[in-house]
Amino acid sequence: MKVGFIGLGAMGNAMASNLVAAGHHVTVWNRSAAAAQKLESLLGAKAVSTPDRAAQGEVLHSMLANDQATREVFLDGGLMDAMDPGMVHVNHATISVALARQLAEEHAKRGLAYVSAPVFGRPDVAAAGKLNMLVAGAHTAIEKVKPLLETMAARLWPMGEQPERANAVKLAGNFMIVSAIESLAEASVLARAYGVSASDFIELMTSTLFASPVYQIYGKAMAEERFTPPGFALPLGLKDVMLAQDAAQAEKVPMPLASVLRESLIEALANGAEGMDLAALARVAERRANLDGRKK
Amino acid sequence: MKVGFIGLGAMGNAMASNLVAAGHHVTVWNRSAAAAQKLESLLGAKAVSTPDRAAQGEVLHSMLANDQATREVFLDGGLMDAMDPGMVHVNHATISVALARQLAEEHAKRGLAYVSAPVFGRPDVAAAGKLNMLVAGAHTAIEKVKPLLETMAARLWPMGEQPERANAVKLAGNFMIVSAIESLAEASVLARAYGVSASDFIELMTSTLFASPVYQIYGKAMAEERFTPPGFALPLGLKDVMLAQDAAQAEKVPMPLASVLRESLIEALANGAEGMDLAALARVAERRANLDGRKK
Amino acid sequence: MKVGFIGLGAMGNAMASNLVAAGHHVTVWNRSAAAAQKLESLLGAKAVSTPDRAAQGEVLHSMLANDQATREVFLDGGLMDAMDPGMVHVNHATISVALARQLAEEHAKRGLAYVSAPVFGRPDVAAAGKLNMLVAGAHTAIEKVKPLLETMAARLWPMGEQPERANAVKLAGNFMIVSAIESLAEASVLARAYGVSASDFIELMTSTLFASPVYQIYGKAMAEERFTPPGFALPLGLKDVMLAQDAAQAEKVPMPLASVLRESLIEALANGAEGMDLAALARVAERRANLDGRKK
Amino acid sequence: MKVGFIGLGAMGNAMASNLVAAGHHVTVWNRSAAAAQKLESLLGAKAVSTPDRAAQGEVLHSMLANDQATREVFLDGGLMDAMDPGMVHVNHATISVALARQLAEEHAKRGLAYVSAPVFGRPDVAAAGKLNMLVAGAHTAIEKVKPLLETMAARLWPMGEQPERANAVKLAGNFMIVSAIESLAEASVLARAYGVSASDFIELMTSTLFASPVYQIYGKAMAEERFTPPGFALPLGLKDVMLAQDAAQAEKVPMPLASVLRESLIEALANGAEGMDLAALARVAERRANLDGRKK
Repeated sequence: MKVGFIGLGAMGNAMASNLVAAGHHVTVWNRSAAAAQKLESLLGAKAVSTPDRAAQGEVLHSMLANDQATREVFLDGGLMDAMDPGMVHVNHATISVALARQLAEEHAKRGLAYVSAPVFGRPDVAAAGKLNMLVAGAHTAIEKVKPLLETMAARLWPMGEQPERANAVKLAGNFMIVSAIESLAEASVLARAYGVSASDFIELMTSTLFASPVYQIYGKAMAEERFTPPGFALPLGLKDVMLAQDAAQAEKVPMPLASVLRESLIEALANGAEGMDLAALARVAERRANLDGRKK
Repeated sequence: MKVGFIGLGAMGNAMASNLVAAGHHVTVWNRSAAAAQKLESLLGAKAVSTPDRAAQGEVLHSMLANDQATREVFLDGGLMDAMDPGMVHVNHATISVALARQLAEEHAKRGLAYVSAPVFGRPDVAAAGKLNMLVAGAHTAIEKVKPLLETMAARLWPMGEQPERANAVKLAGNFMIVSAIESLAEASVLARAYGVSASDFIELMTSTLFASPVYQIYGKAMAEERFTPPGFALPLGLKDVMLAQDAAQAEKVPMPLASVLRESLIEALANGAEGMDLAALARVAERRANLDGRKK
Repeated sequence: MKVGFIGLGAMGNAMASNLVAAGHHVTVWNRSAAAAQKLESLLGAKAVSTPDRAAQGEVLHSMLANDQATREVFLDGGLMDAMDPGMVHVNHATISVALARQLAEEHAKRGLAYVSAPVFGRPDVAAAGKLNMLVAGAHTAIEKVKPLLETMAARLWPMGEQPERANAVKLAGNFMIVSAIESLAEASVLARAYGVSASDFIELMTSTLFASPVYQIYGKAMAEERFTPPGFALPLGLKDVMLAQDAAQAEKVPMPLASVLRESLIEALANGAEGMDLAALARVAERRANLDGRKK
Repeated sequence: MKVGFIGLGAMGNAMASNLVAAGHHVTVWNRSAAAAQKLESLLGAKAVSTPDRAAQGEVLHSMLANDQATREVFLDGGLMDAMDPGMVHVNHATISVALARQLAEEHAKRGLAYVSAPVFGRPDVAAAGKLNMLVAGAHTAIEKVKPLLETMAARLWPMGEQPERANAVKLAGNFMIVSAIESLAEASVLARAYGVSASDFIELMTSTLFASPVYQIYGKAMAEERFTPPGFALPLGLKDVMLAQDAAQAEKVPMPLASVLRESLIEALANGAEGMDLAALARVAERRANLDGRKK
């Protein structure tokens, strides 16, 4: 198929590469041109210098960083009005439920199809084409893009016809990730206050009750006190928790645990974790308990 | 070895059975005699009618329900003073850090060894001899009882010489379990408010990011709205969270997430979850969001 | 002086009336024209049909409902560009810190002065000219408008030269109001669970330790279970708490208590308090404790 | 009347002095004898060396420090069994609801009357005989002691026949005090993050919306950063919040705001506030936001 791909960060790059590798004709655009040119020279994608030139063909994928970038390109930048008639736009980004709703409306007004397809998985998983991909939108549109999505995903998880559902689920999932990390951080500090080492505690938990990727990845980082470079950057974790809170508030859903996460993440940022991984929530728990101070 | 075992609930019964099956001479006592007699008739344990008669031999295991039962038997009931000289007492129960410290002192005063060995695992895991067992106490005492513990456990997790460390870790672990359930409950209600079914959401999460026993077991119960009979009874979950809070407060460790759990659990109990499983935290999240009311 | 006044809700109306009564030439505009015409016929203000016609003279006061209304009139509606050169704009509304910063910039670009002057006080206090008014902005601008502000306020509270400071303080104050109400709600339910009536408890507290307006006003409403018509509407309380949270997050200030308020307010809205006063937080606390259910 | 008074800390001393001054025959006992002897030499009370010698006459007042001291003297120390037949015991201390219930039972068993009469007010208020006193117990017992109570109190607040009700209300009140302080602490830090001084902010709030004793007393301490010597010691504040939580949990009342207070108080203690006033909650809020760090 003839497709466009907009947004070539670590995730977008890996996903677009899989489309190219599967034999599709992929036109790529990225804000900083280097990423697109690299895809062109290495894999044979076609790099273009403006997003509207990628918005031609049957399907447009986008994986922009956040709400702001998505708004700038599609709404303020006018890309919505430059898309080929009949195109399906598949948005893989983690954006707000409110923006997903707005985009769905704007596409509908113009006779374009909009599919939300956010993903769970890190860049290496994306490169392997093994993402878990949530998919929500009109049935016919999804059927059309399914072969493309299957080149990127280990499994597609259908979430119904309203695109924002996939976004709500993605945010709920990221909320659960941050919850798990906060829980592990608080529990570790409790154990440490009784003289048990963080690594002993974390090894126990992540090889028994919590032998799942989230606990193992962030637990390892905590045990090793290795918070840079970030895998999941703490400011992005705060952004996602706040988007989950917004989604919850819009539908009047109290989420007291999300509120605790928000405060801990803000406290982390106030205390030097701007460039760190979410695992640095452990630092917040330590500082509250003054673990360093008491060792002396 | 000649050992005693006190406290034959579902867990204690399975653990004592493994000791018998391994060829040890096990004298058993339980508050209600039936459990002990059953072990005698089925497996050849020796049932006795008072706990002091089980406190003879080399090692005494106990698995009493909680602090109160442990206090009644060992401290108020005088069992401490009836134990054979030189005995090692291995306490498998989930008790408070404060009581663990007190018991360690009382044993030391009498020249008795005290080992804390709380476990992670449900009765079926105990029956299979596959528990994860935390072990803390004097090195020589642990060496002596290790062959016994290995008949019950897939793995022993050494936690140092101070018995209460194992209890702190056990409570930290149970806190993490309840955190996971609350997180799943809040996230599910968010997804449901956007029209995604609980079972779709939970299947997604527990087969991808959170493919670990805790999420799968409680997630399944939530998806099926099956809250009775309880696997982990909600009032016991509250008890354990409060013991974790006590342990944290004693060492001045703030645990804001534990506080959220406490309030949710109390709210559950105020609203009919007395006889339910911890998974009924989903009910609290639903009620707060008035999910039922909005369906009309 | 020749002044304009935009936004004639209950508060704006009372404030504009005081300006007229003090002898100023006041041109008034309101979205729905009736309020402006009433001020014209009763007091001799001059009602105009478009906001730009009120933006002529020396000073423009505005008291629009929220961020959205303020944005629509001043930014999207172009009023910024229609103001007389040299005018001082005094904004009395409770708006976000972010919008206050943006407005300050937009005014500066056009050589206009911008003063933030949000107020504490209900409409009856405004009518009596007894408001407590926070004032932040350029010194010369404030000096110029001081005589006007003094017709409305019992006291002016200078907050420095940066306009958003006054907004941050106003939001901090509203946060404290909602905190007080939540505290009273939780405490009352505790007392009631022990058989003490809400009115006995509230009378005690609000005539001894907490003999201040906030506790007395909301306490009376709680004791009488009188939640409509709202004095301070609960959805506006949530809006203000969320603005306080936004202001806090922008400057990396954790506010765990604000987070609790947010969740309680959302829970209230999910359960029928849309048209009620903030005092209806008492209903949330009651429902959590199932006070009604246990009485049966 | 012939009365005894046990427990002569700052509060008890002031209260007993008023009884003596009103002409009653007061026998006093205190753990450290100096306080009792001082009352004897200055005012003509009769100091005794054991508590049972104060438990003779018509009424026994007690104002011991906490649950532990009360238990030690009345239950473990056997004072319950040494009281004159027909005596009324009036307990002014801030104790747990659980202990109040137990004491009520123990008195009833022995045919003694038990009245709970905890107070609001600091030592200077007690000295002036102007306390607000909550009173709960059997009607006839209260009638009998009323003249004594009126020498100490500005007003008696009847709370019904069950003694623990007065304790629940006292704890609810102390919870509200700590809530007010936490609210002021968080709000001040928000204002400070925007460049407003703590003293400007606090003066505004405590002379307008929150012009009541609690806000004024603790606000002044915060504005002056004067945390020692403590008026209301922070560890006692934590004790009372925890007693309120215990009372709430016993009756299944969720109190999410109390949970936030608990964590903040523990964090304060972990970071050096052991000997400080409750106003030092401001320090916790500051540290979380790293206010000092950002000034640099």
